[in-house]
Parts: sequence; structure tokens; C-alpha cells
Amino acid sequence: MDTFDVYDTTLRDGAQQEGMNLSVQDKLLIAPLLDELGVGYIEGGWPGAIPKDTEFFKRAAKELDFRNAELAAFGSTRKAGARTHEDAQVRALLDSEAPVITLVAKSDIRHVERALKTTPEENLAMIRDTVSYLRGEGRRVILDAEHFFDGFRYDADYALRAVVAAFEAGAETVCLCDTNGGMLPDWVGEIVGRVRAEADGRIGMHAHNDSGCAVANSLAAVAAGATHVQGCVNGYGERTGNADLGAVVANLQLKLGHDVLAGGGLRDLTRISHAISEITNIAPFARQPYVGASAFAHKAGLHASAIKVDPDMYQHTDPLAVGNDMRMLISDMAGRASIELKGRELGFDLAGQGDLLTRVTTRVKDAEAQGYTYDAADASFELLLREELDGVRPTFFCTESWRVFVETTPGKPSEANAEATVKMHVGGARMLATAEGNGPVNALDAALRKAVAPTYPEVDRFELIDFKVRILDTEQGTDAVTRVLVETMDTRAEATWMTVGVGPNIIEASWEALVDSIVYGLLRAGVPNRSETPDGVTTDCD
Amino acid sequence: MDTFDVYDTTLRDGAQQEGMNLSVQDKLLIAPLLDELGVGYIEGGWPGAIPKDTEFFKRAAKELDFRNAELAAFGSTRKAGARTHEDAQVRALLDSEAPVITLVAKSDIRHVERALKTTPEENLAMIRDTVSYLRGEGRRVILDAEHFFDGFRYDADYALRAVVAAFEAGAETVCLCDTNGGMLPDWVGEIVGRVRAEADGRIGMHAHNDSGCAVANSLAAVAAGATHVQGCVNGYGERTGNADLGAVVANLQLKLGHDVLAGGGLRDLTRISHAISEITNIAPFARQPYVGASAFAHKAGLHASAIKVDPDMYQHTDPLAVGNDMRMLISDMAGRASIELKGRELGFDLAGQGDLLTRVTTRVKDAEAQGYTYDAADASFELLLREELDGVRPTFFCTESWRVFVETTPGKPSEANAEATVKMHVGGARMLATAEGNGPVNALDAALRKAVAPTYPEVDRFELIDFKVRILDTEQGTDAVTRVLVETMDTRAEATWMTVGVGPNIIEASWEALVDSIVYGLLRAGVPNRSETPDGVTTDCD
Repeated sequence: MDTFDVYDTTLRDGAQQEGMNLSVQDKLLIAPLLDELGVGYIEGGWPGAIPKDTEFFKRAAKELDFRNAELAAFGSTRKAGARTHEDAQVRALLDSEAPVITLVAKSDIRHVERALKTTPEENLAMIRDTVSYLRGEGRRVILDAEHFFDGFRYDADYALRAVVAAFEAGAETVCLCDTNGGMLPDWVGEIVGRVRAEADGRIGMHAHNDSGCAVANSLAAVAAGATHVQGCVNGYGERTGNADLGAVVANLQLKLGHDVLAGGGLRDLTRISHAISEITNIAPFARQPYVGASAFAHKAGLHASAIKVDPDMYQHTDPLAVGNDMRMLISDMAGRASIELKGRELGFDLAGQGDLLTRVTTRVKDAEAQGYTYDAADASFELLLREELDGVRPTFFCTESWRVFVETTPGKPSEANAEATVKMHVGGARMLATAEGNGPVNALDAALRKAVAPTYPEVDRFELIDFKVRILDTEQGTDAVTRVLVETMDTRAEATWMTVGVGPNIIEASWEALVDSIVYGLLRAGVPNRSETPDGVTTDCD
Repeated sequence: MDTFDVYDTTLRDGAQQEGMNLSVQDKLLIAPLLDELGVGYIEGGWPGAIPKDTEFFKRAAKELDFRNAELAAFGSTRKAGARTHEDAQVRALLDSEAPVITLVAKSDIRHVERALKTTPEENLAMIRDTVSYLRGEGRRVILDAEHFFDGFRYDADYALRAVVAAFEAGAETVCLCDTNGGMLPDWVGEIVGRVRAEADGRIGMHAHNDSGCAVANSLAAVAAGATHVQGCVNGYGERTGNADLGAVVANLQLKLGHDVLAGGGLRDLTRISHAISEITNIAPFARQPYVGASAFAHKAGLHASAIKVDPDMYQHTDPLAVGNDMRMLISDMAGRASIELKGRELGFDLAGQGDLLTRVTTRVKDAEAQGYTYDAADASFELLLREELDGVRPTFFCTESWRVFVETTPGKPSEANAEATVKMHVGGARMLATAEGNGPVNALDAALRKAVAPTYPEVDRFELIDFKVRILDTEQGTDAVTRVLVETMDTRAEATWMTVGVGPNIIEASWEALVDSIVYGLLRAGVPNRSETPDGVTTDCD
């Protein structure tokens, strides 16, 4: 193919997703990441219809400078019976200063008659008038033919007339939309082929995932001659989401040999996808193709031993091609081979240590039955492994007891409504420390550091950067337990690690994860145990 | 097609998913749900290799009685160089008493040589010997040809010889596995077509979703003549998961006219998928095709007004066909039309009340900016709506203050380590109540009920049944807030409702959601405000 358009609509159609709520600032942070990925077009929103989108285009014109992408404004054809240049919504598209305007138009005769409530001819006139007006104002125009596939299957002739009208009026691309998302690949391929035979111009594909085939539908359209694909990072979008743009472009580049992203951006796909999910605050889907945390994670003991021999025989593509990485999972099913590989990943050579591997495997299985998970919490796994290696768990201090107190009077907000007191043995001394915090975990974290810092001032470099909570029912009929994952950063080393705690409630689970995070951080930084007496014994935990 | 096999491998291949850890009891609960869905085969695990799978088959033979499905045991062909009837792993398959045995075998010559480390001929002999031995013992045999597609693309002749060997030895089905999950639909269709031309017997498809095409790959195989599909409920499985069995069968039945599930089970797909995710304790994916919470949820104001006219024009299929339901979402993007529709869903006729709709829309947008979400929390939305309708928020009591205390001494476990005290005004009296609990939220919930129950004994019917926590960064650079969703059940009415609370920490957020859950429950039960004086005023909140 000559040229190929990768058109991202994360900021417009993706933002329709349940639970998604993007601020102008969020959009200003996401757009440069999309540009870095190397997409050709970034659809920023619907200026004029959504006030924060109007604001986004205003600020984007001043603040953003893309290397690869063109900014596109989404809008609608003129109103039925109106004059184009007097239509406020069309004026707002011009006012956005976006070089590319993407117009949504009806191509399903039933939607023209029952939703738009106008005549077939007037709808075609709305397409022609709006496209040619915007072309006359110097803008490039893409037409999104809404409900195209359903419309084509009901009345192919009318759907085609809408496409031809757009091309004749000067649209450079007509993107065929599976708006309700119910198409299957064979249907898409056949219909795109028929449109290509009857209309002259660039054809695009806009897929939704309602039948679970959005990626395959996009590929089927390309195979049938489409040279423009629309989609959203992480497959965001209304209902089941839009086509996952990352999976579509990875398949096109890695499997079908089409070089569609500018500047080698595919190698940054994982990082960019995750960065965007940080901004959208939608938890990433671990099973997401190519970029998911689990996408190249191997669990089965059966495979683990074979993967040691030949990793390429167990992966559909090189994870580095999309910036992801192979991982071995430590879990219930882990055979000793997985534990050995995981150990190697963490820098421990466990080859040939059969008894140790069996003990660690058993400990992991027991802990997972209680609600622990080591899939993510590498630091907690390493503490467990060191305990089995050395016969004793690494400790730098000992906890006697802790308590935490929260008090609230509605209407009287307070910065620090929680207070924690810890009693600990550190460096041979009994430490009693009290700290306030914004909530009980925050107060406990502060009190713990206060007790430990006089002996281990290194803890001041550690910063709690993420905190996740999950309520688990470990077994039917027993009480729920709470699992907490804490991510900590050593600000000097710029390294992060994750620990896990499990308990009957969030506070006990948090305490365990917080203690482990400090112990691991001190170990990692190579800090010696300063509680030891000159003859090498510590009495902290007696 | 004559007959069609729907083969579920949730309990075996699905269980390889990261974070999944199924107990024997879990499997005994899931299997009857799969049978109810109407699948033809339930693969229960690998007896002999995984101890809890051995146990599962033992108990399944005694405790389970399927209406539709056959139980299948998964295992491997005999070891290289061994005698089949002496192979312990093969014996364990017989001992499982499963009527169907699914044997995994190598069909990629590279895996034969590099992973299995045997000769091409010995691998074929292993297939022939094991299949014919099990057939001789009266079992039905399915052969899973591992890495088939990669193998076929590398050495088609050898891959085909493995298929033919299995059929000749008596396998009733050979299932072609895309073990690494990297296939695309066109490749699958072509290869399945070639196998059909060269081998005589039932061909199956086992897809993984690494290229995001597992559903489409399964359909492509069926179009090319496969009459057996394997997959997992909710698309569970290693890495990116197996083919989502629900989406595959829904597409086959609703879009391609193949009636593949027994007993009309498709109408229970959503309920069964969700029930299974309760047992696996893997949070359901809202965007999952057909069964996801968002799969038929509409958000955009643009569509909301049109959906009122003609719902079928905006859905790819009738949600009731898979037991799901259309939902209108109350969110930032909600125009007044969505709020009006949501009101109607809750029993309020808001048509024509423009000012009210505007006020509610603004309140919802403001609250969502602070971290609230009403997508799920219908009860909290209704309280907000009633507040705007009546000019005053429904109240039954007033909170003066509350405090909660948690204390722990490691090594001294205690049933009730938390204690809460609330000070409230209820029924014209000041109530001071203290309660213990397993954790702070539990203690607060108990103290709240204790203070309210003397005036409103109805609260004893209310039971907290689910509790979800999420840490949110509402805006860049500001502190995180905690959002809590509480689900409560009225055990007499068997109705449940969900409320939301947001606060700087889990305890404050929980308090808000707990109070709303009690207020909504009392409202719902038609309980009058018993704090009112005879002249209709309440002084509780003065």
C-alpha cells in the first residue's frame, strides 16, 4: 500500500467509556504520548458540543507541537434544513483551528428517517454541503459514515451514495463505522471490498468490539483495501470499547509487514499504553494483547522447564518489539522450574538446590491459599526466598504492638484525623513513636518510619508511591480477607519495589506490607543490621 | 453441520491464568454452572499431574451429575521410549474414570526435537499407542495437537502426519491448538481448510488471544469446517487468555445461526459468567463482549435521546438473548436525556422538568470530579435525585461524631481488634453506641446499626454483602482519595442496592457509603421518619 493512516480516537470516542472522565489537562498529557507512539491523527474531541473539548483545542493550538500527528476535530454535518455557514456547530469546528475535520454523517437509511427525521436526499445534501464548505475554508476532511455496515446490509445502495457524496464533495477519506460493533470479519471484508469497487478514494475502518472481533474486523478491512484504521489505546470506548489500536498496529507491523507507525513507536507501545492508563485512571487489563502485564507471563510448570531451553518456541512474537517483557510467575502451579527461573531473574542461582526449591514452592502455595499473591510482589517473594535460603527472615527491627485511632466530626474537616502509635525494638532500644496522618494507613506509615529512622536514616529516602486494596473471599463460607499491595520507591536509586500484606482488615494487611517494604528497601540498599551487638546477636526480637 | 462440540477448558487451561487459584471446591461449584450453560464437554484438569485435579475427578465422579456435558480428563501421550500401559501418567487418566480423555501431543517438529528431545517417528508412535490403548480401555479420545499452527507453517507435512496418526488410532476429534496465540483469522481459515482436505475426522479449534483475535480465529476455523471449539468462560487463561467461550458461542448462535448450546443456555450466559467470576474471584472485565457490565451500557448524551426512540438501532443484538440488560449511565457526559431515562429506570417521571434535570446533571458532574461514580451506585444516585426533587436530602438520623480504634500486638490474634463509638441523634434522642468488630469498617457498621436500631429496628434486616475499595487520583498533583462501594441486602425483600462514599481515607469513605446504605434501605422499605415531632419537625440535625 502507498500510505497508511493510523487514526487515534482515544480522546473522543475512547472517552465515552464507562468510568472514564478526562479533564482538559488529562487530554493535554495524553496527546503527546499518542504523537510519540507515531500515530498519524489524534482526534481531540468535539469542539462546540462539549465545553472542555472547545477548551482543549484552544490550549492544544498554543501548547502542543506534534512531531508525527495531525490534530483532528470531530463534529457533525450541518443540521437538516439549515445553511452550513450559519450552523454554530460547524463554525465551532472551524474555530477549533484543527487542520483536519472529521465529520460524522448518517449512512443507514433507517437512522436518517427515524433518528435524524429527514429525507434521504437532505441527508446527502448535508454531507455534500458540509464537506465542501470545510474544504473551501482550507480544511482537510474525513467523513465517518456512522452505522455504515448495518446500513449497507439493509440498503447497500443508499449507504454507497453517502460514501460517493462525501468523496465528490472533497473528503479525502471515508471511514466506514461499525457503530454498534456487531460485525464479523468475513462480513467486513466483503462489504469493504464492494465499497472499494464502487467508490474512488481512501477507505477507513472504525470498529467496536461488541462481537469480540474489533481487531480482526480492522484487519479484515485492511485486507480488503482499507488504508485508514481508527481505534483507541487500550481498547477504550463505550460498551465493549473501540478496536484496540495497539493490537491492530502490532498485528499490521509484526505479522503483516505493514510499517504503519512513524518513528519506530511500536517499541514504546507498552510504556505508552501504561502511561495513558495512569492518566485515565482506568486499571490496566492484565490480559490485554501485547501490552498487558500477563501478555508474556508464563505460569505452567510444564512450560517453565521448556522455556529455559528455547523462549522463542513459547511466544508468538518478541515481547521487546512492543516494549513488553517475558515474566515467570510464582504461583500455586509453579513447579520448581518456575521458582528456579524466578530466582535467576532476582539474581539467585538455585540450580540443583532441590530441597530448597521444594520448600519455597510449598511456602508459596500455602501463602496463596491464604490470599497472598507474588505475581506482582517480587519484593515479598524475595524476602520469603531469603528466609528459606538463610534459615531466618531478614529483619532490622521488631514490632511489639501498634494502634491507630481515627475520629471524625462531620462538617469539621481536619488535615490529620488519624493518629498512630507504634512500639518497636530498633537498634537495641525500645522505641515508642506517635504520628498523625490523613487516614490510618498514612498515620501508621509515618509512625513506623519515625521509630525506625533514628537507627536507619535511609528510610527517609523511601517513598510510598502506590497502594492497592482488594477484598478477597479466599474460600467459600469463611470471612473475607483484605489484600494490600504497596509500591515503594527509593528516591535516590530511582528503584521501586512491591510488597504484599494480607489480613482480616485493611489496617493489619497494610502494616504487613509497610514493614516488608522497609525491610526490603534496607536490604536492597545494602544497609547492615545495626541492631547487632558486637558479637553479632540482636536482641530486638527476643 | 451435523453436530457441534462446545468444549470448555476453564477448569484446566483457564486455571493457568495469572492470579487464578482454583480449589477442588471451586471446581466442584463451577462445573455444574458450565453444564447449565449447555456445553458438551467440561475439561476438569490433569489427574495424576496435579494432586488437586486427581481429587477433583474422584469427587466429581461421586458428587456431580451432568445434564448436558461429558467430563473430560486432560493428559499427555505416553513418555518417549516407555510402554503405554506402564506409564503412570496414562494410568492416572484411566483412574480418573472420565469418559473422555483429551491427550495433548506435539505436532510441531521443532517441539518434538528441541523440547521433547525424541525422534519424529517416536512422537507419532506415542500418539498412536496412547490413543489406541485408551480406546481399547473403552474411553473416547480427543487429541489436542499442541503448537499445531506454528508447526504447520514450519513443516505442514509433519503436522498433518500427527493428525492422521491420531485419527487412524481411533481419536474421534483432533483439536488444532494455536498454543502461542499468534494466529490471524485468514491464516487459521486457510490451514484448517487444508487439514480438512487431507484428514478424515472431526476437527477442533483451540485459540489463545495473544494477537487479540481468539474469537475471530475460532469463527474462521468453524467457517473452514471445524465442528469443535474449545474456550474458557470469561476468556480466562494464561497470558492474554483462551478464546472467550461465551463470545464464540454467542456469535455462532446469534449471528451465524448455529445452535451449539444445549437447553437454551445462552440466555443464562451473563448470570453464569458472573457467578463463575465470583468463584474464581477474578474481577469481571466490564468491557467483556456480551456479558460485561458495560456491554450494553450507553453513555453519550447524543445517543441517549435517540435510544428513547428506537433501542434496536443502537444495539448489535438483543441483550436479553445473553441474559444481559441495557443500561443508561449517569456520568459526566450525561446529557439531560440520559438523566431522564435513568430516572425512568428508577421510577421517577422527569419528562419536561428541565430545571431539575439541569440541576441533577450539574450535581453529578461535580460529584464525579471529586471521585464519586454513579455508574453502579444507583442508590446513591437516587438519594441525590430525591434531594433535588424534594429540596432536602432524605434523612432518618443525624451524626454528631464517630471514632474508631484499632490495636494489634503481633502474635496475639484477636477476633475483635477494632472498636468504634458513634454519637448520633435518632428519634429525638442522643444515642451513644460502641461496638467491636473485625477491622474498623466492620466496627463502625456495627456501632451505626446499634445507635439506629432502637428507633428503626428494620435495619436488622439489612446485611452488608459486598465492599469494594479503590484508591483514586482525581487530578494530577493532588492527594489521592479513596472510593468505597458498599452493597447491601434487605434479607426480607431479597433486594440489594449499592451506595458510594468518597473520602480522604477508607474509613471516612466507608462511613458515607454505610450511612447512605441505611438511609436508602429505610426509604426503600417505606419506613417513615420516626424522628418527627407530632407537628412534623425533626430536631435531630439542628
